[in-house]
Amino acid sequence: MSILAYAQKAAREPLEAVVLDDPAPPAGYDVDVEIAHCSVCHSDVHLLDGDWGDVARPLVPGHEIVGRVVSAGESAGLAEGTWVGIGWQAGSCGACGACLSGREQLCTGGKVRTCVGRPGGFATRVRADARFCFALPPEIDRATVAPLLCAGLTVFSPLERLGVGRGKRVGVVGVGGLGHLAIRFARAMGADVIGFDPDLGKRDLARDLGASDLVDPRGPLPQGALDLLLVTTHAPLVWDDWMRALDLEGTACVVGVAAGKLEVSFDPLMDEQKSITGSVIGSPATMRRMLAFAAAHGIAPIVERMPLAEVNEAIARVRQGKARMRVVLDA
Amino acid sequence: MSILAYAQKAAREPLEAVVLDDPAPPAGYDVDVEIAHCSVCHSDVHLLDGDWGDVARPLVPGHEIVGRVVSAGESAGLAEGTWVGIGWQAGSCGACGACLSGREQLCTGGKVRTCVGRPGGFATRVRADARFCFALPPEIDRATVAPLLCAGLTVFSPLERLGVGRGKRVGVVGVGGLGHLAIRFARAMGADVIGFDPDLGKRDLARDLGASDLVDPRGPLPQGALDLLLVTTHAPLVWDDWMRALDLEGTACVVGVAAGKLEVSFDPLMDEQKSITGSVIGSPATMRRMLAFAAAHGIAPIVERMPLAEVNEAIARVRQGKARMRVVLDA
Repeated sequence: MSILAYAQKAAREPLEAVVLDDPAPPAGYDVDVEIAHCSVCHSDVHLLDGDWGDVARPLVPGHEIVGRVVSAGESAGLAEGTWVGIGWQAGSCGACGACLSGREQLCTGGKVRTCVGRPGGFATRVRADARFCFALPPEIDRATVAPLLCAGLTVFSPLERLGVGRGKRVGVVGVGGLGHLAIRFARAMGADVIGFDPDLGKRDLARDLGASDLVDPRGPLPQGALDLLLVTTHAPLVWDDWMRALDLEGTACVVGVAAGKLEVSFDPLMDEQKSITGSVIGSPATMRRMLAFAAAHGIAPIVERMPLAEVNEAIARVRQGKARMRVVLDA
Repeated sequence: MSILAYAQKAAREPLEAVVLDDPAPPAGYDVDVEIAHCSVCHSDVHLLDGDWGDVARPLVPGHEIVGRVVSAGESAGLAEGTWVGIGWQAGSCGACGACLSGREQLCTGGKVRTCVGRPGGFATRVRADARFCFALPPEIDRATVAPLLCAGLTVFSPLERLGVGRGKRVGVVGVGGLGHLAIRFARAMGADVIGFDPDLGKRDLARDLGASDLVDPRGPLPQGALDLLLVTTHAPLVWDDWMRALDLEGTACVVGVAAGKLEVSFDPLMDEQKSITGSVIGSPATMRRMLAFAAAHGIAPIVERMPLAEVNEAIARVRQGKARMRVVLDA
């Protein structure tokens, strides 16, 4: 069975339909997954635009993949027909300290990314390592779940690591692909959530997602009001202002890839014992907990759906910030 | 009984001997403490030099005080004759969220400092709130313990909060008044400790204190080698370099008052989930644990001793970085 994929031949060029060579049957841990849905992440746009340096081309982006296992290597342990999700990480060395301690997302021995140096999910089929394929809970709506695989994991992992729960006050900076899921997860964990977004047209949406309010960050911020700030936006921030929004010993956590450097005064760190940290996707174990938590709480991404053939239009919507909240491509 | 004190009348001027009015007997929580020893902290120098803005003058610095209770108010609960230590904090509001949660050092309702707006410890007697006077363990050497009251607490509190223990790898940046105590505490907690100081003449000292090595920070730093960096120096740092010295998910904690702003790349925060935080002195409960821990482990500061009358010479030594490691003034 041949694979139809959408590939970019040079940075900033549109994607073109290509037919990939039919590979040999999967061996070892590998599986072939017939793709049903793949959503468009900002990281795909960064790769396409050359923002992260040169990557191998033709480039087939896509790393929020939902599909069905159609063929499995002898060590994969995944039955054919299983519906799985695949995220940003496609493999790890399994031998470094990070891997040995269940933090494969921090692997120092050779991280593998789903759509870097290998074809990703804007295609009809993808080959993947079964250890980074995640069986989907039966309750989950497969047509809309794709963004959980990267955006969902990216926000769930720090919320969990930083102890979000009942009574915690969480601010979510940026109510988009990541932020809208962060609001839902934090609220389901028991937190009181405030969204921050310059587009106050999202206020009703933010409230529906579980935020008590949506605040325009260009105006006055609440003072000393938050235990955790989850920064999902790419926009540069005036960090001293945001530190003041935190209560004593509060933490700001960056998950949106920002340009430039972080610049902050020492006072809030010392006199108020505040912290700044960041987070990158999450481990396979966290992915499993995230999917189970989403299923248990009925948490689904808000998506627009488009046919895979309209991938260039979909990417344009994401690049322009028009997607509400994520575009899922149906293969 | 009259009080002899050393007071500064204008910023950057030397201190002069003055006789303070004998106050009315202490009432309520207040006690009068006859001072035996008071060490010189860099914060005293900052106050004297006007680095922290205007403070009430005449200024009597000194906030690492060891003395004996000679008179006590009816609610003080401290017997006359008790040897106590007094540090930077002299009072808190007792009613804000920080106080109610045992984090009095972060009090938002009105922090009181031992030598700001009231006479401090470069004197023969001081009035203090008994709730911020700490009975000294009997094993402790009173003549050298004074620096524990501020410098010791300042490093012990973050080591404890950030979970230093057996197997943790701690880097101590700056081996001076704070740093030499940080090495001793961290080692006694079970950590492996590396000191960083441009003066490699301190190498034997650092090893005696419990460090496995002393590294010149102007040369190559160890890479990915530390779980915690405790920054006790006032010097500006190239933060990206220091972040590389941390292992994955490591934390850098600032306790030395630095000028300017902290500037760091997002990569180590996100891709390696590292954190930056800070710490300021510690709570009364932490002070008690610190003193008990120091007594149990035989941890004492390294000090030079000078008579109180030589206070200006002592301050000059501290300002010039010549003190090894702290100057204690004997009243």
